Amino acid sequence: MTIHDSSLRIDAERLWRSLDELGSVGAYFDEDAGLHGVRRLALTDADIAGRELVTGWMRAAGLAVTTDRVGNIYARRAGADNAAAPVMVGSHIDSVATAGRFDGCLGVLGGLEVVRTLNDHGITTEHPIEVAIFTEEEGARFGTDMLGSAVAAGRIDLDAARARTDSAGVTVGSELDRHGLAGAVEVPIRSPHAYLECHIEQGPILSTGDTRIGVVQGVQAITWLELRITGRAAHAGATPQRLRRNAGLAAALITVRLDEMVESGEYGLLLATVGRQVNYPNLINIVPEKSLLTVDLRNPDGAAMARAEADLATCIAEVEKATGVTITSRVTAKTPPVAFPDSMRDLVEKHASNLGMSCERLTSGAGHDAGEIAALCPSGMIFVPGLYDGISHNPREYSTPEACADGIDVLLHAVLELAGSGNE
Amino acid sequence: MTIHDSSLRIDAERLWRSLDELGSVGAYFDEDAGLHGVRRLALTDADIAGRELVTGWMRAAGLAVTTDRVGNIYARRAGADNAAAPVMVGSHIDSVATAGRFDGCLGVLGGLEVVRTLNDHGITTEHPIEVAIFTEEEGARFGTDMLGSAVAAGRIDLDAARARTDSAGVTVGSELDRHGLAGAVEVPIRSPHAYLECHIEQGPILSTGDTRIGVVQGVQAITWLELRITGRAAHAGATPQRLRRNAGLAAALITVRLDEMVESGEYGLLLATVGRQVNYPNLINIVPEKSLLTVDLRNPDGAAMARAEADLATCIAEVEKATGVTITSRVTAKTPPVAFPDSMRDLVEKHASNLGMSCERLTSGAGHDAGEIAALCPSGMIFVPGLYDGISHNPREYSTPEACADGIDVLLHAVLELAGSGNE
Repeated sequence: MTIHDSSLRIDAERLWRSLDELGSVGAYFDEDAGLHGVRRLALTDADIAGRELVTGWMRAAGLAVTTDRVGNIYARRAGADNAAAPVMVGSHIDSVATAGRFDGCLGVLGGLEVVRTLNDHGITTEHPIEVAIFTEEEGARFGTDMLGSAVAAGRIDLDAARARTDSAGVTVGSELDRHGLAGAVEVPIRSPHAYLECHIEQGPILSTGDTRIGVVQGVQAITWLELRITGRAAHAGATPQRLRRNAGLAAALITVRLDEMVESGEYGLLLATVGRQVNYPNLINIVPEKSLLTVDLRNPDGAAMARAEADLATCIAEVEKATGVTITSRVTAKTPPVAFPDSMRDLVEKHASNLGMSCERLTSGAGHDAGEIAALCPSGMIFVPGLYDGISHNPREYSTPEACADGIDVLLHAVLELAGSGNE
Repeated sequence: MTIHDSSLRIDAERLWRSLDELGSVGAYFDEDAGLHGVRRLALTDADIAGRELVTGWMRAAGLAVTTDRVGNIYARRAGADNAAAPVMVGSHIDSVATAGRFDGCLGVLGGLEVVRTLNDHGITTEHPIEVAIFTEEEGARFGTDMLGSAVAAGRIDLDAARARTDSAGVTVGSELDRHGLAGAVEVPIRSPHAYLECHIEQGPILSTGDTRIGVVQGVQAITWLELRITGRAAHAGATPQRLRRNAGLAAALITVRLDEMVESGEYGLLLATVGRQVNYPNLINIVPEKSLLTVDLRNPDGAAMARAEADLATCIAEVEKATGVTITSRVTAKTPPVAFPDSMRDLVEKHASNLGMSCERLTSGAGHDAGEIAALCPSGMIFVPGLYDGISHNPREYSTPEACADGIDVLLHAVLELAGSGNE
């Protein structure tokens, strides 16, 4: 057969079984959702168990498994030209504390399924192919997302990554050493020939229409802020409004103002979320003395993002003045927007069309390893829809077997074009 | 001497020593305030230790100590006419979890100091005098404030009170039985001749001027609501604003609207506080699925309070519509405004003036036992200023020895007039 035979398909059932089996590692029963979820925080024993399951499959598929200094795994399938840079596919298998079984895993197991399919059909590519598993993509344990791929791409220094701590004070470095995961591959890694990642959308855009494939234009800029508001505790029944310094009211004013900024349309496609708020002392009859507030800003346009950040700072100063509180603001994460090259977008779109799948271009709302590896080589992403408005970071996260197979079929053909014919 | 000798004064030092000694029972070190506070939740071992200390002092002062069915203590000093209804003074000694040493204790130990002073001077009154300690005034353990005095006055049924549980599921009844506090005095109690309570203001009105005595007009109406907002969790980076059902934004909109209602002046002297807010899952990059919000409304005017409650309900419906969340509202406490009779206000004002103390009429922002006992007999209250804007429910709560003595000197002379001369 020729490698550009468009009738070539992955084994959708095998992919689904692998997702299912990996989903049982770190499983827990979620009382709120009423079903099983996944809890596989990076470099915990559950994550290690997941890594061992998947690397076992990788070795069984004939791949050579290596690990870099920060625990990223690269499983290599030889090409006809082993001096050529590899085509890399992958994602992550670490999870948030209340996860589903698709986020990240589809990219890793989909990469493995591409290799298995090539093996089944005796296809050799010109370039080697590497399936990557990146460490701590979620940031759920050590507080910085895309940690492993950022080290691989050189954005974050290895020592800085190793020094990061979890909430119990355990460092990334000590966990890597404990599990023997600080491997021989140097970071930053050598640039791949190209990088492709298939992922669930984690949003509602594809789920609301009939579109089967999302062609990802790039990753939005992300800014995370932590605001600490300090007012004064006071008796709710005995303190006139004019004498209050109400930290909770200040938090509410900022939350409402952020929503108005988004609705105004003046900041392009800005998204703003106050996800976390903790009042102190948090009692019914005490005016809040303190409020901790997190702000998550996203924007595909870096200039519009900068304007939003500046105007938020002005809003904070106005709220301080109006309510008499003091507010300190700290940036806890900040990544610029990433635009994937046209060549990679076009490649994904072409193969989706060849396979008869409808597609839509969209920007990723979430950060992804592809956004980091884009610094090393032409990179791109394939999104597939999730049910329930694409709910994610939740045990209810669900993509159908058909949707998963769609994405990995597109990945297969795109990888074949990138890696080139070796045995025709 | 005559009992209306205006030169009669309490022993300010003895009062202060008693406050100090009781303040050491249930003391803990408060990390946030950097000083010692009091933690004497109702019917805990610390509360019992406090009761034993004070009833020991009561007995040493010659008082006959009895207890009613709900553990309220009445310490009786005989009068010339023991068939006459007693003049009652008192308050409570239970505390919130992070308390100072004045809230409630000044009223109880001040009542004891009045008796000690009468003893020192060999004064007999016509009416007996009773010093009362009411159970669970704070509501901090069993969730309903003024519980003991409400049972004494008949507003709350004994069985309902005994069935109330703390956060661990322990009932009032089992705690009363464990400590042997379910006494022989029937509830509702027989009406006293009159009731007077001296208390720290717990607010900033007196602390901002030179006024030494607050003449309490009455107690505001209090309504407590618990709002449960249910939206939908969503990825902060991938969910457009129009597809969100943001429980945290709904909470912020209600908080801001309540503040606007107060500022409008359309609801009289309305106070509104959102003291407690708990988002779920409370993570930086997840749109809040749920938010629990408490609302504390106060108003000296019952009609204006009713309008505020109705308009809040409208606001809640509007926020539901605007944000797509659903909100359930539950009333967790509701007491009408209490106006103390003119005779009692005039009595306090007259004796403050006789003693050369400046006074100011004000409405109590907090609920008090006097608001309950007012259903049984003419009742009144004397407020004294606290430092630091009258901060209370906090280890920083502080009234000076002079301010405490002022209030109890007024109490002494007012009690003497109410109880009548017995030995002139």
